[in-house]
Amino acid sequence: MLKVSKKEMIVGGSKTHYFISPLIMDNVSLQSCPATNPSMLNVHLVPHTHDDVGWLKTVDQYYYGDRNYIQHAGVQYILDSVIDQLQKDPARRFIYVETAFFYRWWRQQSQDTRRIVTQLVNEGRLEFINGGWCMSDEATTHYSAVIDQMTLGLRFLNDTFGECGRPLVAWHIDPFGHAREHASIFAQMGYDGFFFGRLDYQDKARRMKTKEMEMLWRASESLTPPLADLFTGVLPNGYNPPEGFCWDQSCNDAPIRDDPDLEDYNVDEIVQRFLNAAFYKTNHIIMTMGSDFQYENANLWYKNMDKLIKYVNALQAKGSKVNVLYSTPSCYLQELNLANLTWPLKTDDFFPYADDAHDFWTGYFTSRPALKLYERLSNSRLQTCNQLEVLGGPKSTSGPFGEGDSDTMSKAMGVAQHHDAVSGTEKQHVAYDYARRLATGWAHCEVLVRNSLAVLSGSESPRVFCENLNISVCPLTESSQKVLYFSMNVYNPLGRTVSWPVRLPVNGSLYNVTDSNGKAVDSQVGNYVFMSFKHICNIYDMKSSSLLPLLSVRWFYGLSPHISINSKSILVYVFKFLKVNFDDTTGLLSSLTNLETNQTIRLTQNFYWYNASAGNNKESHQTSGAYIFRPNSSDPFVINKTAEIQTVTVSSTVQEVTQWFSPWVSQVVRLYEGHRELELEWTVGPVPIADGLGKEVITRLDTDIESSDYFYTDSNGREVLERRKDYRPTWDLKQTEPIAGNYYPINSRAYIKDDKHQLTVVTDRSQGASSIYNGSLEIMLHRRLLYDDFRGVGEPLSEPGEFFDGLVARGRLLLALTPPKMAADVHRPLAQGMVLQPLSPGTGWAPLFSGLQAALPPAVHLLTLSQWDKDSVLIRLEHQYQAKESETHSQPVTVNLQKLFSTLEVLGASEMSLGANQWKEDMNRLQWNTGTKASLPLSLSAKDPSPWEVTLNPMEIRTFLLRVRQL
Amino acid sequence: MLKVSKKEMIVGGSKTHYFISPLIMDNVSLQSCPATNPSMLNVHLVPHTHDDVGWLKTVDQYYYGDRNYIQHAGVQYILDSVIDQLQKDPARRFIYVETAFFYRWWRQQSQDTRRIVTQLVNEGRLEFINGGWCMSDEATTHYSAVIDQMTLGLRFLNDTFGECGRPLVAWHIDPFGHAREHASIFAQMGYDGFFFGRLDYQDKARRMKTKEMEMLWRASESLTPPLADLFTGVLPNGYNPPEGFCWDQSCNDAPIRDDPDLEDYNVDEIVQRFLNAAFYKTNHIIMTMGSDFQYENANLWYKNMDKLIKYVNALQAKGSKVNVLYSTPSCYLQELNLANLTWPLKTDDFFPYADDAHDFWTGYFTSRPALKLYERLSNSRLQTCNQLEVLGGPKSTSGPFGEGDSDTMSKAMGVAQHHDAVSGTEKQHVAYDYARRLATGWAHCEVLVRNSLAVLSGSESPRVFCENLNISVCPLTESSQKVLYFSMNVYNPLGRTVSWPVRLPVNGSLYNVTDSNGKAVDSQVGNYVFMSFKHICNIYDMKSSSLLPLLSVRWFYGLSPHISINSKSILVYVFKFLKVNFDDTTGLLSSLTNLETNQTIRLTQNFYWYNASAGNNKESHQTSGAYIFRPNSSDPFVINKTAEIQTVTVSSTVQEVTQWFSPWVSQVVRLYEGHRELELEWTVGPVPIADGLGKEVITRLDTDIESSDYFYTDSNGREVLERRKDYRPTWDLKQTEPIAGNYYPINSRAYIKDDKHQLTVVTDRSQGASSIYNGSLEIMLHRRLLYDDFRGVGEPLSEPGEFFDGLVARGRLLLALTPPKMAADVHRPLAQGMVLQPLSPGTGWAPLFSGLQAALPPAVHLLTLSQWDKDSVLIRLEHQYQAKESETHSQPVTVNLQKLFSTLEVLGASEMSLGANQWKEDMNRLQWNTGTKASLPLSLSAKDPSPWEVTLNPMEIRTFLLRVRQL
Repeated sequence: MLKVSKKEMIVGGSKTHYFISPLIMDNVSLQSCPATNPSMLNVHLVPHTHDDVGWLKTVDQYYYGDRNYIQHAGVQYILDSVIDQLQKDPARRFIYVETAFFYRWWRQQSQDTRRIVTQLVNEGRLEFINGGWCMSDEATTHYSAVIDQMTLGLRFLNDTFGECGRPLVAWHIDPFGHAREHASIFAQMGYDGFFFGRLDYQDKARRMKTKEMEMLWRASESLTPPLADLFTGVLPNGYNPPEGFCWDQSCNDAPIRDDPDLEDYNVDEIVQRFLNAAFYKTNHIIMTMGSDFQYENANLWYKNMDKLIKYVNALQAKGSKVNVLYSTPSCYLQELNLANLTWPLKTDDFFPYADDAHDFWTGYFTSRPALKLYERLSNSRLQTCNQLEVLGGPKSTSGPFGEGDSDTMSKAMGVAQHHDAVSGTEKQHVAYDYARRLATGWAHCEVLVRNSLAVLSGSESPRVFCENLNISVCPLTESSQKVLYFSMNVYNPLGRTVSWPVRLPVNGSLYNVTDSNGKAVDSQVGNYVFMSFKHICNIYDMKSSSLLPLLSVRWFYGLSPHISINSKSILVYVFKFLKVNFDDTTGLLSSLTNLETNQTIRLTQNFYWYNASAGNNKESHQTSGAYIFRPNSSDPFVINKTAEIQTVTVSSTVQEVTQWFSPWVSQVVRLYEGHRELELEWTVGPVPIADGLGKEVITRLDTDIESSDYFYTDSNGREVLERRKDYRPTWDLKQTEPIAGNYYPINSRAYIKDDKHQLTVVTDRSQGASSIYNGSLEIMLHRRLLYDDFRGVGEPLSEPGEFFDGLVARGRLLLALTPPKMAADVHRPLAQGMVLQPLSPGTGWAPLFSGLQAALPPAVHLLTLSQWDKDSVLIRLEHQYQAKESETHSQPVTVNLQKLFSTLEVLGASEMSLGANQWKEDMNRLQWNTGTKASLPLSLSAKDPSPWEVTLNPMEIRTFLLRVRQL
Repeated sequence: MLKVSKKEMIVGGSKTHYFISPLIMDNVSLQSCPATNPSMLNVHLVPHTHDDVGWLKTVDQYYYGDRNYIQHAGVQYILDSVIDQLQKDPARRFIYVETAFFYRWWRQQSQDTRRIVTQLVNEGRLEFINGGWCMSDEATTHYSAVIDQMTLGLRFLNDTFGECGRPLVAWHIDPFGHAREHASIFAQMGYDGFFFGRLDYQDKARRMKTKEMEMLWRASESLTPPLADLFTGVLPNGYNPPEGFCWDQSCNDAPIRDDPDLEDYNVDEIVQRFLNAAFYKTNHIIMTMGSDFQYENANLWYKNMDKLIKYVNALQAKGSKVNVLYSTPSCYLQELNLANLTWPLKTDDFFPYADDAHDFWTGYFTSRPALKLYERLSNSRLQTCNQLEVLGGPKSTSGPFGEGDSDTMSKAMGVAQHHDAVSGTEKQHVAYDYARRLATGWAHCEVLVRNSLAVLSGSESPRVFCENLNISVCPLTESSQKVLYFSMNVYNPLGRTVSWPVRLPVNGSLYNVTDSNGKAVDSQVGNYVFMSFKHICNIYDMKSSSLLPLLSVRWFYGLSPHISINSKSILVYVFKFLKVNFDDTTGLLSSLTNLETNQTIRLTQNFYWYNASAGNNKESHQTSGAYIFRPNSSDPFVINKTAEIQTVTVSSTVQEVTQWFSPWVSQVVRLYEGHRELELEWTVGPVPIADGLGKEVITRLDTDIESSDYFYTDSNGREVLERRKDYRPTWDLKQTEPIAGNYYPINSRAYIKDDKHQLTVVTDRSQGASSIYNGSLEIMLHRRLLYDDFRGVGEPLSEPGEFFDGLVARGRLLLALTPPKMAADVHRPLAQGMVLQPLSPGTGWAPLFSGLQAALPPAVHLLTLSQWDKDSVLIRLEHQYQAKESETHSQPVTVNLQKLFSTLEVLGASEMSLGANQWKEDMNRLQWNTGTKASLPLSLSAKDPSPWEVTLNPMEIRTFLLRVRQL
């Protein structure tokens, strides 16, 4: 097998057998595409099902077909039925998308069935499309988790089917808007094209008119084309069949009644209706024949499509120029490529999505803020779990604390990326299920982490995990028995040192805190143990120096013991890098100063709520709901014009001001010593609805920055796009919702700027954000609504709380003020630190340990470090700066793969596609012509100095399979 | 093939090849029954689908799965899917019931599929059950049409699959009550047993308690046991699966979730729930696993049943005594038979059916009276069509008037027998479809009849059929052009002479009417041409003797030209046999006298309506609807206490009085010369509902007959059962609906009697009837309702009329007053004459012709005469008297098969089962022990004198396949 041989050379004599490649041919599926007729209009019927990995039902309920009273859907039966029907006629085809379901099904199949399915895959009759664990949301997901979930699904397909199981096309038919970073990721994963269903109705109308439904999407401003170029097609009917041609059991369209002896013979009428469909740029058109959870009884579909093909093509004998065939998106794509046309170029993204004038899907950017945070936190935990699995070796998964694994967490994260999961658009019981899965995943990881720490520390003494530190509960450290001495472990998954506050409820008033080398650490009982964490693993000891009993401390509800407030004086808080002023009459922030750069902006921050539309106004009956944001006025209500300053804390490590706005809104403004950001820790909820008004709560930062109509938001936590109020780069926008129509998703940051100042906000989860006024930036924090918004979920978004009537959400915004050209140097590491947090500490001693030989260069982020199989690990190194955004860091940077790890010897390395399902050198994507010269030279990228020394260009991610040996 | 050889001897050297018998074994299906475990409780899972041959959708819509927005149901897919699933595991079984659907499906299948299905049938994995064209209604069908529809279905199965396609079990799981005559028919067709789902809830409770859910039904008081004995089982869950075990796509019960890694693993709970099911008399229990239109996606059912069997039987290893298996009703029945128990005996029937205290399904006995009449008329037409096909020979179906056939009509009648067809419980659009099918069937027959008459008359001159004689329209005879001379053909399908009024609208005032021999016939222009019809075919000439133009005459709206009414005088009408008096103050009938027997009764007749319950009273929310009759008071409203006498007609052939009761109720009371019955031609409708009250219209005959609580109703037009008010023969009735709970179906007659007098009413269609008071008999004529009755049809029964807001129904009741012991001599031929009416005349000349050599003996009815294949005809001869009901006729009677026909030579004869799918001598039904000695000696039946001379005992029907040659 040729490919494996090539790998052998690269890794230096050590054979790799990671890939099953049962077939020699490249792109077997393409070679088995059905014949088309170049002199006719070829209609590619694409039988497909869209299987949400949770929405109205949980993923397992969908798999089994349980609780069909909620929604009739059973994926096990879909796959059973399709496989049966495919066998009946070799012309029939089917695509399958969601590996989370296929995986569940596959493992219940007999060897016979597996053999049949493999054969169907090898012959291109069953083709995997997209192939991730789920079809991820694009607005509220972080690229790190997206890459992971894609890798999880693609690996299963590769392990199971080899090259024939490799999806050639990305397929996001349902997500509610499309992120440029997703397109970039898909391109880097080797997909030849991308199809989706939903785009703004105005955009669609224009594209239909100008025949620009298909285009080349240049998805990165940093990567050299065509690295991030992705052929992108908008499907003609969303992802549904043409009207009147839905033959699923869930549809009521007339079947083809072709027995002339029975009543209502309708062949002629059906054929005629079909021939009236709209057409595209080439003489090929794709027709999605399927929809949500369809094909549970595939016979209905295939039987009628067989007839449709038969009767439409029969007309060719009478001069018809229409040729209908079973096809797949990749076969359709191949025909488009062969047409050798020039295609329009797209460089912005497809947000926000509106399907009508008052129907902007911008609410889900914020829906379910607690789930969104938990998902983000779980990503951090998973990375830690993965890393410790690698570092701890085989005993991590089977060690003194039992059987642990990272798979459960990987799969839980895989389903959580679904476009009705982290998006917040699922039913409440399903949201609980996602959270439960993440918690179960973590429970499995926790065993792994204990095992791994036991290996790394050489100590098998038990550890106590403090799961509920977010509400300041830790059973060991605050037990009623006085604790005189304990050790605490902290694991830092970033590849470099961070300083990070640790909050630990304790049962003594004064502790000495030292690191494991006995060096004192600055700490403050009742608030934080505040420590710098070096790469990989740090362990701290905390020794009590007092026997006085003390209440465990809850920061936001107690009074500060340190400073009494003179409400008439101007409050100023200052550390080395930042100064923040408060208005003494309103208690609100009033200015922010960067002491390094000596720049100050006026900064007022307050909380407001938009009154959610109840659907009773004259323009439209659209309500605000889980998906849709629709305020019934552009003017939000202020929650309080003034903030009551409740506590002020000043210490050597942290300064805090607690602001109280209302019984359901408060905030801690916080400065950490040595940090360049201001932290705003907001608490919102339970949002009151007794007044019968749904509320969408924002915080707004009003500054004197001359940002005009412009603001900036990131895409899936990576590259940043420019936004402009009431404007879309690619069409002449008719703005119909002045607020909701200007909201964009932010995953980790947003900013406004002028020539001098840039105010960047880094967030802890995905949210919706906008800039409605010059110098203003607003972020939606929480939503509580009274009505469903008619997009299927069938529930108003009104999350119950654990202790209160409604959900209380808490989160952090990190504010950085810099000159624009220095902004990235601050917000890039700040955001990565927010994403990969040191693991919530556990107690128990371990020696100071680092898995890396040295900290990574500042521009390099360790995106992935996970065990691949017994002898190999998957690593992704990322250049975390965009081209040109940092004078210092936006440069190529080189890493030596053999000098990374302290406990692993790297024996060989093979570079792979981003999805880790193809050798990099085998990537051979279709080429597309845009008719314009590439705006960037084709080979800006710096080359690798040697096989072991790999160079990362700005925004580049490189994926390697390393053959390793534990030292 | 042995069986065919035996036949050859009987038919005298001429070979018969009518039957395809691909297998030598008897009862292959039984021999392939699954193994059971005698030491365990064996649970027979019977996968089945119940496919209504029209109900909420038309039969073709159901077949295709069209209009699924009304009801999701597509039979083509059910059969596709079941055949696929049966192939996956030889243990799986399925039964199929409705041949009307199977036939449609079969003819669209490839040879490959046909081969597979045949194999499945031969192996007993697919078993046909019941097997008629439909699952007939039992309350409103006539035995003649039931036998025909069964024959149609069974013949298709026999032609297609031979002996393995012969159903062994009758299966009426849905009909709303069960007729004794149906049981008798099934016994005579050779079925080994009968299962049904619905019986009175009180009866069911008692039977559950006493373990009498299974019994031997002795279904005839005339036929020698066990000729009409039928083992009968009541199914435990209607025809549904046990609660919680419905795994069809249409159900929402939890699937078996047996992957412990997925959420909600439920195997243990499901198994435990299943083991809690109730049990029967033997260690076998049947579980119907299916329901209405289920198994469209059979995988869902089989996959979960496979798991159920696997997990329940796995418990046997732990001591469980429950054994679950795939089975069929016939395999279950075989086990019951092998148990060799004694079974309770049942001799009455299962009417009326109530599923709760106020929920009597006695409304449908009358629902859609016009459809019920049209169905009955169509039966008569079909018999005529069949007979003329035989008599006219091959040119009947392909002759000078084109291609004609009786098949279309047979099939239309076949579906019309369905328990949501003639029953009147279908949606309105479906009722129209049934009528349309009958009309189409007749159009095909009309060609056949013309061809046949051309053959028989030697004249190919065109004929005009007067289809609309019921509203006195005939395009030829009343054309504006004066018609001086025309001939009219009348075909009499009875085997003997009848006298029958012919109404023909004409365009002249005076006609001479002669028969084809020139003999004058008494006629009366403006009323009737009144003629005696001899057997088979009579032709009459009508010659106009006047050129005066005259309006065409509508009898019921014109004034009589003959007699002026003196309203003060007592009206008396009299012919040779009957005298009828009217009350001169009320205008109502006052007495009836039989002049032959010199007996007189007081007889008052009037019209009333019950106010249909709107479901708003305190006992129950049950409404009256298509199924349910529920008056909200036991006292009906009289429509008018007096009748206005509008016209009186007296002539030598007929005397008529027209009574007007209200704008929507009128009646003609009519005596025919030479007739022994009084005819009441009622017209009811449009029933007014502007008052917001649903109405159920009855006519009530009040007499001085001392009938006490007793009255008598026929069963499917044949044997008569005694009824008693507020009483059931087999359980202690708690009467909760004093009116509706005493209604019974009548198909052709009802009577009350005392020692001296019997008043018999013969009807023209099926209706509901009761006797609420001593001496009283009431018949429900029409119903118009405002509410649905919650049994699924989803429409109030409010039939639109063609010209009015509501349907106008018209019909005839024939009253005979006799001593009880002479009653049958009158009502038997009267009823047969009503069922088989002379064919509505066409014009055109033909010579007098009779297909029979001589009239049949009075006790013998020619039930069937139809072409079987090229060289053979099917004939059924029936003894139309019950044992003991007629001194003259309740005796054995012999007919010589070779001396029946005038145009056919009978070459051979083979006797068959009643269903014509088995040689009579091969009938070998299971024997059952009732523990009581047979109440009748086993061989009362007289024997045949010779092979050609066949003897009929009372109520016996004998079925022969005759090999014939046209003379």
